[in-house]
Amino acid sequence: MLSALDLARRIEAGTLTPVEVVEACAAAIAKREQEIGAFAVLDIENARQRALEPALRSLPLRGLPVGIKDIFDTADLPTHYGSQIYAGYQPRSDAAMVTLVRRAGGIKLGKTVTTEFASLEPAATRNPRNPAHTPGGSSSGSAAGVAAGMVPIAIGSQTGGSVIRPAAYCGVAGFKPSFRMLPTVGMKCFSWSLDTVGLFAAGVADVAFAAQAISGRELRIDQAQPQAPTIALVRSRAWPEASPDMQHAVEDAATRAERAGAKLIALELPEAIEQATSVHAIVQNYEAFRALAFEYDNHREELGPILRAQLDEAAAITADTYDDARRVARRARQAFANLMSDVSIILTPSAPGAAPPGLNSTGLPTFNKLWTLLGAPCVNVPGLLDREGLPLGIQAVGRFARDRMTLEAACFLEGVVSQ
Amino acid sequence: MLSALDLARRIEAGTLTPVEVVEACAAAIAKREQEIGAFAVLDIENARQRALEPALRSLPLRGLPVGIKDIFDTADLPTHYGSQIYAGYQPRSDAAMVTLVRRAGGIKLGKTVTTEFASLEPAATRNPRNPAHTPGGSSSGSAAGVAAGMVPIAIGSQTGGSVIRPAAYCGVAGFKPSFRMLPTVGMKCFSWSLDTVGLFAAGVADVAFAAQAISGRELRIDQAQPQAPTIALVRSRAWPEASPDMQHAVEDAATRAERAGAKLIALELPEAIEQATSVHAIVQNYEAFRALAFEYDNHREELGPILRAQLDEAAAITADTYDDARRVARRARQAFANLMSDVSIILTPSAPGAAPPGLNSTGLPTFNKLWTLLGAPCVNVPGLLDREGLPLGIQAVGRFARDRMTLEAACFLEGVVSQ
Repeated sequence: MLSALDLARRIEAGTLTPVEVVEACAAAIAKREQEIGAFAVLDIENARQRALEPALRSLPLRGLPVGIKDIFDTADLPTHYGSQIYAGYQPRSDAAMVTLVRRAGGIKLGKTVTTEFASLEPAATRNPRNPAHTPGGSSSGSAAGVAAGMVPIAIGSQTGGSVIRPAAYCGVAGFKPSFRMLPTVGMKCFSWSLDTVGLFAAGVADVAFAAQAISGRELRIDQAQPQAPTIALVRSRAWPEASPDMQHAVEDAATRAERAGAKLIALELPEAIEQATSVHAIVQNYEAFRALAFEYDNHREELGPILRAQLDEAAAITADTYDDARRVARRARQAFANLMSDVSIILTPSAPGAAPPGLNSTGLPTFNKLWTLLGAPCVNVPGLLDREGLPLGIQAVGRFARDRMTLEAACFLEGVVSQ
Repeated sequence: MLSALDLARRIEAGTLTPVEVVEACAAAIAKREQEIGAFAVLDIENARQRALEPALRSLPLRGLPVGIKDIFDTADLPTHYGSQIYAGYQPRSDAAMVTLVRRAGGIKLGKTVTTEFASLEPAATRNPRNPAHTPGGSSSGSAAGVAAGMVPIAIGSQTGGSVIRPAAYCGVAGFKPSFRMLPTVGMKCFSWSLDTVGLFAAGVADVAFAAQAISGRELRIDQAQPQAPTIALVRSRAWPEASPDMQHAVEDAATRAERAGAKLIALELPEAIEQATSVHAIVQNYEAFRALAFEYDNHREELGPILRAQLDEAAAITADTYDDARRVARRARQAFANLMSDVSIILTPSAPGAAPPGLNSTGLPTFNKLWTLLGAPCVNVPGLLDREGLPLGIQAVGRFARDRMTLEAACFLEGVVSQ
């Protein structure tokens, strides 16, 4: 994999050029893209041209290539949202994230594959760690592209578990920031209360570097001496759905963290928080039935069967049911803020286990939906493998707006599990 | 003006057809549109065709024509967002609101004029009450179109005061529902924390009818026997900025309401709420600099001078300043919910006074920004005139999610001021 931070430092030091980085990406793409299918559209020629601009070197992203999930509009590249309904669609303008990446000195390398409208409907992308397995979804191409060394940074989005799960399955760092830290403007909407822009990179310090460069917030953790965090091991109600390997990975990480100086506590989620898990689908689907109203009313037969059935069911959700669900979510957010007052992060699985075999499913957002609903910052910590050599991702979940603390604690965990 | 409720009842009773309503609109447009300029694009021929569909009569909007602010995407009509940057732009899909209007049995009559990206940059629309005056903005065409009897219902949006102010200036009912009651998907974003979809119609019962038809929520007030509300007369810190006519109009409405049985209390806004007024611009402009990043970075010279200067300044707002502003807003929302526990509505001006003369300014959102930031439902109550015969709008502001109660109280006020 390409470490964004390492590349940026070398460009800054003058020992590497943005052109050389683009060529390294192009070489990895030439080698593996046919098998993996991480990109919906490539833009390597334009990237080569832009890499020549001298101004890039003094901008935060230093001319690093970035993959853009094909759920974000691009003014100069077709945008399909993973749906045949948008075949040949060329937006008029860039999504906010695309312009922010450019403002920060990033180079758009191409559009990465998304599942259909970022839903659970699988795409054709394969997992670079084992191409017989799913890379997860919906940010399938962003996770796979980073994992295959094709691009050092990729943009994704999460409504259920679409950043953290594919990051876990592909063995890369994934960062879902606090709700609305990064703008969703120009991103195809699935659920306006849940859609969250996220980032992928090789390691936690890389993803923190990218997040700072794009957001302008103090999120870099590579220059700090991180304090040992207070880690709450949470075996939520979903815990039995984690594989034995995953349960062991989380518990082992906790033990190692404690040995390395972290304060470890066991935490039980109060009912006000646990019950919010079940309302995620109500909020998501009520909104999706409206956000995708045009597509559902005019192109229902062109939707994939999973999404079509989901929207068929969503039509029956009443405003009262939706309002009740939002009230449950609001109370859970308050309870979560209180719960986290003395805790740096919650440690919990990123996914039920390693990437499942086959491409018929992108896996389950069991360990992600709650935190998305709470708007809490989440980081997939890479570095662990199961007995078959597939990545096992563990997750650091922080309090809303404590993105930096969450990244620091995730970096601490990454350090202890890799030893 | 065309009463949506009256037209819908007559269609339902079989004494009027949707075709006849379209023709009435077409006649009003033929008579006044050249002078007023309410529409960016008209779609009367398609409206005539669609009005023939027999299924419309059994749908909630009964085939009524609807004007769509040209800030919402339409798949079959060009969409300009009031900006030359989008000249000739034809979106691929409809905004959620456009499909929801169609789902409800509404007929799109055309796109109504918006100011540039719904900003303070004025458009060319004139006020039907006196064409030498501004209709207000940014939903200039939606308010003017309803006021001129060209369309019974129009969709608008409010980020500062863009629904309530033009409704007040044009003498129609304007309804800005609770934040995110109506979806902003497919609407050009200015500020994702503030942009709110709103509705225009002749009277309060008409706008409530339209809101129920489109949202599927129980918002109609025409069949209920409304209870006398508890009304809080709020002379906020902005009160001295209201004209003497406006101050008198609000106080007189309060007196009349009390005489008609309402409970009247005088309320002072706590500091936690008053101070939020000053953070509206920070939230709005920090987000606009990102939401309009593509336009600003690629087409700065094509922006109008007001918006360009606004975005130039916005570039300097830091994330810390923005986060502080959001905290102030959050505390204000909590304080407002507490304040409103025993109150049906706050009564306050909709605008500093009647529509100012000239088309160089759309007026000021002085009496709107705070409530937009709080996400509170607001209704412009029409019916009062100043000494020159121009409309004076008074405003009912309710607690978040109490949209129906707010509409009921606004209807009560509308009744007492018209007597």
